[in-house]
Amino acid sequence: MTKRIWNFSAGPAVLPESVLEEARDNLLSLGSTGIGILEHSHRGKAFLKVYEETEALCREVGGIPANYKVLFLQGGASSQFFMIPMNFLTTGATADYLVTGAWAEKAKEEAERFGNVHVACNSADKNYSYVPQSASYSAAPVYVHYTSNNTIFGTQFHKQPTPPAGVDLICDASSDIFSRPIDIAKHGIVYAGAQKNLGPSGVTLVLIRDELVERGAKNLPAMLQYRTHAKNESMYNTPPTFAIYLMGLVLKWIKQNGGLTAMGERNARKAGKLYAFLEQSRMFKPTAAVDSRSQMNVTFVTGNADLDAEFCSAATKAGFDGLKGHRSVGGMRASIYNAFPEAGVDALIDFLREFEAKK
Amino acid sequence: MTKRIWNFSAGPAVLPESVLEEARDNLLSLGSTGIGILEHSHRGKAFLKVYEETEALCREVGGIPANYKVLFLQGGASSQFFMIPMNFLTTGATADYLVTGAWAEKAKEEAERFGNVHVACNSADKNYSYVPQSASYSAAPVYVHYTSNNTIFGTQFHKQPTPPAGVDLICDASSDIFSRPIDIAKHGIVYAGAQKNLGPSGVTLVLIRDELVERGAKNLPAMLQYRTHAKNESMYNTPPTFAIYLMGLVLKWIKQNGGLTAMGERNARKAGKLYAFLEQSRMFKPTAAVDSRSQMNVTFVTGNADLDAEFCSAATKAGFDGLKGHRSVGGMRASIYNAFPEAGVDALIDFLREFEAKK
Repeated sequence: MTKRIWNFSAGPAVLPESVLEEARDNLLSLGSTGIGILEHSHRGKAFLKVYEETEALCREVGGIPANYKVLFLQGGASSQFFMIPMNFLTTGATADYLVTGAWAEKAKEEAERFGNVHVACNSADKNYSYVPQSASYSAAPVYVHYTSNNTIFGTQFHKQPTPPAGVDLICDASSDIFSRPIDIAKHGIVYAGAQKNLGPSGVTLVLIRDELVERGAKNLPAMLQYRTHAKNESMYNTPPTFAIYLMGLVLKWIKQNGGLTAMGERNARKAGKLYAFLEQSRMFKPTAAVDSRSQMNVTFVTGNADLDAEFCSAATKAGFDGLKGHRSVGGMRASIYNAFPEAGVDALIDFLREFEAKK
Repeated sequence: MTKRIWNFSAGPAVLPESVLEEARDNLLSLGSTGIGILEHSHRGKAFLKVYEETEALCREVGGIPANYKVLFLQGGASSQFFMIPMNFLTTGATADYLVTGAWAEKAKEEAERFGNVHVACNSADKNYSYVPQSASYSAAPVYVHYTSNNTIFGTQFHKQPTPPAGVDLICDASSDIFSRPIDIAKHGIVYAGAQKNLGPSGVTLVLIRDELVERGAKNLPAMLQYRTHAKNESMYNTPPTFAIYLMGLVLKWIKQNGGLTAMGERNARKAGKLYAFLEQSRMFKPTAAVDSRSQMNVTFVTGNADLDAEFCSAATKAGFDGLKGHRSVGGMRASIYNAFPEAGVDALIDFLREFEAKK
């Protein structure tokens, strides 16, 4: 088999090898069923078992309270950007948005179609290189929305925001869900595209408190009402069965590897090493403010675009893939989600050190 | 490896073995890239090549004119049910629906949220066991919507409807797309969930004429405007990369097996054999009217619910899976899409004959 290389892709991203091997072995026959995992009816016993196991693992691993629904939807975080205000932001009401990056900004723009939006904080002044340490909320927002990790800019909330008492906190956790313990009960909704920490692209995990399911608008197309999916256990229409199966395997892997506490410790160690190297480097510098650095996406630059390009090219040749930074930041970005091995971070640090030494 | 059994599932459904084998071999490394197909960034060269090949194969196999966009969306046909009227059925205007089954009815119900709906024909009077041979259109519909194959009731349009001159025909082809040649140019939009004839669940193919892309409503969330997906080549948000890859493999398999003409001939032969057996059987009877029979889903009953159940149970034990009919029809349903082998139809006929002989 071809040797696997270090994949620093921001998403879709590296998956645990054991997960890929298990999926591979079930592609022509799921267990002894004689039917591959892709080919099972979503209404059949074999897939229902997969579905139930995935949901149960999600609840166990994520510590999801019983009064929250676990939904497996389609359309990515981008669909949640509009579904949330469409369901909860009635005309005349105000929703608060913490604008800490490009995706937070897109979420805010979709909300503006439906009602008043108050920007409770905004870090666009420094190209989103930091997460504001405080926010100024409106008088009575219907919810407060934030993006826990900003994939593009390499920043992350180190502690979750504190909205006014009684106001629902809604989190786009696409790029750091289950990378550390998360207090679901402090949120009304937590949602995440799966393609970074949970599995493949094509499924969106939505954790939503029962009361919000009920409160959502009723005059919407069936597919755009959370209650439709809650009532039908995500099977109102044919769900993305393989993506749900894969998410189940990833959740099992998280559990086997110590759960969210262990994930958090390992991710802190991985990112910590890389930031420590960058701190002492004469050539490479992290772009994010110290108090806002992401453990998932480590962004850094040399300060010279040509040298950045030379580094990326050399890294690709040496088997480090996906390090080119997003065009909004330039430079480099190492995405090191849960499944990215610590050995790959060590190898990258060695490579960075050697590249610097040769100059 | 576990022996594969005959999978008559209505969808997700059987896929060609060669497709599953190729996917399996690329799960840990796509070709020599060292990164599995699930793990490649949708912005990277490797996946862009997959995407371009899939789109090109789709255009070639389906004979899709250059003035149509090929979009790979999420949310299933159920999302198209509302996106179409949301984009094209303005208040005061009328859309015509041919109501020939449960899915057609759901599509119609979603349209009623947005404007006037005229039912141009309806076969609910006989539990959708036939496709009306004529329709009565309204004066100036903005479009005419039909469901080319009715999965639940085992009926299919044997020729496409003829809307009033200049009116766009819109087709939900989820359960028979690319099972026979289709004249895309006679349609404004053809859409299909992939999980029957095209690949796994989790991706929806939408073929849409450029002029409709432009005409769609502009005051909608970005994800609900066709122009967003057309402009961004289905990558406004992260697409379901693996499902698109699989669809590409299935399209390659269709091409290698003679394209849509050959598919149509083979499907006619497969369904023809099964209907011929049912016609002469004293025990089993087809439920669909002769002029409306589906080549994809063959529905039949004994007329005795207990005997139906006994048959289904015996069939499952003998390695024929997924034959239980939908609760709306009862009895049995053999879904025999493109990838269902002719040998499996022969085996089913033998089994039916033996079961009947023993009684």
